[in-house]
Amino acid sequence: MLHPQRTIDELKELRALTANERGAQRVAWTDTWLQARAWFKGKVREIPRVQVSEDAAGNIWAVLPGATDQSLLMGSHLDCVPGGGWLDGCLGVVAGIEVLRHFAAMDMPPVTVKLIDWADEEGARFGRSLLGSAAFAGNHSIEADRVRTDKEGQTLQEAMRRCGVEISRAAEATAGQKDAAAYIELHIEQGPVLEQMGLPLGIVTGTKGVERHAITFFGQAVHSGATPMPLRKDALAAAAKLALEIRAIAGKHQDAVCTMGSVKTFPGIVTAVVGRCETTLDQRDLNAANLAQMYREAKEASERFAAEEGCTVQWSRIWDIEPIPFHPELLDLCDQAVFEASGTRHRLPSGPLHDAAEVARCGIPTVMIFTQSLLGISHNKIEDTREDHLRLGVDAFGRLADKTAAWIRARHS
Amino acid sequence: MLHPQRTIDELKELRALTANERGAQRVAWTDTWLQARAWFKGKVREIPRVQVSEDAAGNIWAVLPGATDQSLLMGSHLDCVPGGGWLDGCLGVVAGIEVLRHFAAMDMPPVTVKLIDWADEEGARFGRSLLGSAAFAGNHSIEADRVRTDKEGQTLQEAMRRCGVEISRAAEATAGQKDAAAYIELHIEQGPVLEQMGLPLGIVTGTKGVERHAITFFGQAVHSGATPMPLRKDALAAAAKLALEIRAIAGKHQDAVCTMGSVKTFPGIVTAVVGRCETTLDQRDLNAANLAQMYREAKEASERFAAEEGCTVQWSRIWDIEPIPFHPELLDLCDQAVFEASGTRHRLPSGPLHDAAEVARCGIPTVMIFTQSLLGISHNKIEDTREDHLRLGVDAFGRLADKTAAWIRARHS
Repeated sequence: MLHPQRTIDELKELRALTANERGAQRVAWTDTWLQARAWFKGKVREIPRVQVSEDAAGNIWAVLPGATDQSLLMGSHLDCVPGGGWLDGCLGVVAGIEVLRHFAAMDMPPVTVKLIDWADEEGARFGRSLLGSAAFAGNHSIEADRVRTDKEGQTLQEAMRRCGVEISRAAEATAGQKDAAAYIELHIEQGPVLEQMGLPLGIVTGTKGVERHAITFFGQAVHSGATPMPLRKDALAAAAKLALEIRAIAGKHQDAVCTMGSVKTFPGIVTAVVGRCETTLDQRDLNAANLAQMYREAKEASERFAAEEGCTVQWSRIWDIEPIPFHPELLDLCDQAVFEASGTRHRLPSGPLHDAAEVARCGIPTVMIFTQSLLGISHNKIEDTREDHLRLGVDAFGRLADKTAAWIRARHS
Repeated sequence: MLHPQRTIDELKELRALTANERGAQRVAWTDTWLQARAWFKGKVREIPRVQVSEDAAGNIWAVLPGATDQSLLMGSHLDCVPGGGWLDGCLGVVAGIEVLRHFAAMDMPPVTVKLIDWADEEGARFGRSLLGSAAFAGNHSIEADRVRTDKEGQTLQEAMRRCGVEISRAAEATAGQKDAAAYIELHIEQGPVLEQMGLPLGIVTGTKGVERHAITFFGQAVHSGATPMPLRKDALAAAAKLALEIRAIAGKHQDAVCTMGSVKTFPGIVTAVVGRCETTLDQRDLNAANLAQMYREAKEASERFAAEEGCTVQWSRIWDIEPIPFHPELLDLCDQAVFEASGTRHRLPSGPLHDAAEVARCGIPTVMIFTQSLLGISHNKIEDTREDHLRLGVDAFGRLADKTAAWIRARHS
């Protein structure tokens, strides 16, 4: 018997503990984050038969043994961006506590149930997101990551060691994959789609692939007063054309997005034509072929615009990940769970990445549920979701857990 | 008898004294600038009958008495931007030394001749350009300027006091206007026009008026992955449209220029749609009505683009100055001088401002000569001009000085 209101109450408890007037401050590897995790451990230790442990990458596991070692995994992350909201990440963990209680109330849960608080999903301080779930999935990048520094110059290795985690051993977290039969995650949408459609919940079809590049246009910095318009090599003009063209490139595919999030101009003074313009481009789609096409078209467009403006252009890949579609049978179970809870069903891809993407990448059947986000705003203290929608989300998530446990039993018997 | 090669030799002497591997370092109110000025004073003190003094705004005056108190003024500036070139500003001062020698070689110069090294033309350290010449012209802004700070937090008032100049007395520099009958200045073009036309010298018709504004677009910062393209309020998109539209706006008028020199994006991260985009716009034309039209059209366009993108826009004036046409009779004399020296004649407006603009503003008949700039580059250590063009420039400047002195005599007799 789930009590969705208890999840809301506990989310508020956590907010009172870890937020200030600028928003939530549970940044990974900080004292506030450790406080949030201590609070979480206290909550799950109150549940009978639950064992709490921490793996080699700093992920916390709360394990409830069941009728088979085959396990249902649930998870999300307690860490957040500085000045974040009260729901991003912790909704899934705290709802997981409630679902764990639900299974613990049975004499013998049908499967072993494991709730995971993934470490450092946001990468807010060191720029390496999905750190804990990537280590679990075998996608760690320890050598590159250990020397990452925060704004104060502290290394990630030092910051983790302070929290009792030795980065050189993080690869051992793959041990957690043993007997993992399915993974489910509840998260806020962090976008405006469900709100625009008037829907409380969404069934997440997968996470979009991402092509993320730094694109720099090189022109010629010259005096803004002394240089006639036709004689300029204006790096900003080339960048501006690309900033507009990426909308047409994304527009060819449903749900695709292209974003120029950062533009820097050099010398960047009012009296000089821009000689160098550094931009970033983030492209996402659930379809790998579409994503590849978008990348190709943006590259060609940038070269065309550079040539038109007498400039040159350089591309440098920041990061990429392939599209990760979720498990078709779990999608159907999720569809049923969401419909039973809310009377609505709508499938949508996730633009943001989630720990679920890493789990799915290593072959564990995975699915996610989204709750509506008000105004589509996240990573901000004003991030919010209607409480009735949160209750529907916890309800649907519990139903999905039951259905997935039964599915695991049927599959492994 | 002028020796233009001596001017080149002396410019190289000054470069050896005040440049390092990053370029010229004669930034106003620094020790290197004081060194340059001491060198200049030494040079002019070697010329018989020349009296050297400093006015209340820190301008250095080298005065050679002549047959009448009615004076021919010549000037430019020894100060430069950090890492600047070997010609910007000092060409006019050092050529002036040579012209002063030419007049001093006469038993009695036809008029009194005054060579001025204007203080802090560039405004490189405190952001207030034309400081010395503006004070001379009565256009000082002492109360606003005294509290200006450099990157280290030192105030302009303190920096000037260190050089023996008391800013509160700067307005007294208007005394220099007495008996000023004409002003001439030699400067490098700092743009590519003369080089493109294959001309060594140009007759400057005036300095363009400037409308300089900060323009900020306000949209909504949202997650780049989670927000579908049609639901965005992308402040960068509105700014990009304006960055391109200003070219059409400038294109309606010959010689007009519009420049977006700085773009800043906020939050400015690869994973967020730009919520706020701060830009600068610098518009220039020699015709006041055209300039007003360009300003109006840019404002209207920015509002239209903001509306198209679901954004708002705010304009804030940084600075403006009206177009300043030079004296028609001096333009004719300049035309003759340039033609005699080079066999070419071409008139062009100046986009950059010069001390000559301040002098002209207070009603003193003024004209300038430009020498060609290689690659149109200035404010950079690679700034350069062919030495044969420099020699032609000094020759033409001497001829202009003679003609202007005769014009003054004729006018005031």
